[in-house]
Amino acid sequence: MRMTWHDGAQVEGSIAIDPQDRGLLLGDGLFETILVMNGRAQWLERHLARMAASAKELAIPFSLDAALEGVSSVLKTRDLIPKSLRITLTRGKAAGGLAVDSDGPSLLVTAHHLDPAITGKPVTLITSSVRRNEHSPASRMKTLSYIDNILAARDARGRADDALMLNTAGRVACSTIGNVFALKGRELLTPAASEGVLPGIMRGRVLELAASLGYAAREGQITLDDAASVDAMFLTNSLRLIRPVTQLDGRPVGNKGVAELIEAMNPRLLEGSQP
Amino acid sequence: MRMTWHDGAQVEGSIAIDPQDRGLLLGDGLFETILVMNGRAQWLERHLARMAASAKELAIPFSLDAALEGVSSVLKTRDLIPKSLRITLTRGKAAGGLAVDSDGPSLLVTAHHLDPAITGKPVTLITSSVRRNEHSPASRMKTLSYIDNILAARDARGRADDALMLNTAGRVACSTIGNVFALKGRELLTPAASEGVLPGIMRGRVLELAASLGYAAREGQITLDDAASVDAMFLTNSLRLIRPVTQLDGRPVGNKGVAELIEAMNPRLLEGSQP
Repeated sequence: MRMTWHDGAQVEGSIAIDPQDRGLLLGDGLFETILVMNGRAQWLERHLARMAASAKELAIPFSLDAALEGVSSVLKTRDLIPKSLRITLTRGKAAGGLAVDSDGPSLLVTAHHLDPAITGKPVTLITSSVRRNEHSPASRMKTLSYIDNILAARDARGRADDALMLNTAGRVACSTIGNVFALKGRELLTPAASEGVLPGIMRGRVLELAASLGYAAREGQITLDDAASVDAMFLTNSLRLIRPVTQLDGRPVGNKGVAELIEAMNPRLLEGSQP
Repeated sequence: MRMTWHDGAQVEGSIAIDPQDRGLLLGDGLFETILVMNGRAQWLERHLARMAASAKELAIPFSLDAALEGVSSVLKTRDLIPKSLRITLTRGKAAGGLAVDSDGPSLLVTAHHLDPAITGKPVTLITSSVRRNEHSPASRMKTLSYIDNILAARDARGRADDALMLNTAGRVACSTIGNVFALKGRELLTPAASEGVLPGIMRGRVLELAASLGYAAREGQITLDDAASVDAMFLTNSLRLIRPVTQLDGRPVGNKGVAELIEAMNPRLLEGSQP
């Protein structure tokens, strides 16, 4: 049985939640998935800062102290050696009406195993017909309302490792679990948040590191035509770091320069994550 | 304490759910809200048929027998006199990966009170900047991933009763809790499901009843220009039936013919709901 921390207490097995909890009933909440290495949650401060900012935008009360207590509590269960953590914040119990405030939020921290082989593992993609909705602020937050990404991931099942999602304008947005970068020469391009993508923690690290490694990185727009003419593509994700894209819709994607980039970047993505 | 039915048993207070439940973690599930009159769930068969169809599309196992048992169990708690029911289906517990199947679904039936004054009550709207994503099949299902509607409803809070949501093409889709109809002379127009709207049960009843009451009804597209030139607009919802729209973005909406339509239709919307 995995250990869970739920609203101030360690719990084994099922958790008790109110049948009116808005996270359960309406996907009304947020989450973060965080890599654990050597017993430490990597880039915890950035994950919590992102959750805090989104919670503010959604007007969900969020206690940083409670989140830190939950993380610390789950990390201490050493026998389990979690390799990743998930923090889930729900708006909590509320009666009637979509816009009502709740009686108070609920916070859940769960521990997960992680296959170390996924770090840097090459990935094949298909383009999903399910689009990211850049016309909603939720597309820039990690909310519990994940059904579009789930539908896109199911699209890919049995055909590819993951799905590429376009936004409703038909431009490249992200995969169902990661940000997308295009590489052309020494230039790196990733869709801007306004394209309907989550500002990922590893995406942010790649943008930060680029200049010091001799790359020019920017946020912008990537059309499908652009995607067809780049030297290489890769995905970023907090648990999987940088992974090269090897196929898109059954056609090979170029790999020029991508191995070199990954070799330079992957070991440095976690640097500085402990204050 | 309200009575809840959860996976085969009546429960008071909190329910026990797995911390890996996909409904809680990812909005991966479906719901229906059902009007109860005289102790009977209205249009129960249609609600369950819609849930079954969407569950099939999402590949979530759904037991009609279990749902009927849950509804019957909650309706029998006569001291509570629920005025509405909510059925919530989640994909249940699953480990890792967006596209994985679960160990089995979870089903929850909750009872709710309902203010009888909301039936037919006029409604003011503002147009939300949050759009319905017609590029996702989820826009045509009642999934637990409700964050876009929640954000739109919060947009309206303090400014209007509800928010009008456009789709990503900028055409009228729905309100955060109901379908939209436009009335012009004896012609009724409502956005087609392909516009990114849920095929509502009451929406379906209005389309069925129209001809017998001398209206020509059709599904199609409604632009904002159309909306400005109609005689009247109204919303439909399973709990609130037909409600006239009196204001849109602070400007009055015409009411020509709408009182007559509501007087003719509201009493008939529930006819035939018992087999």
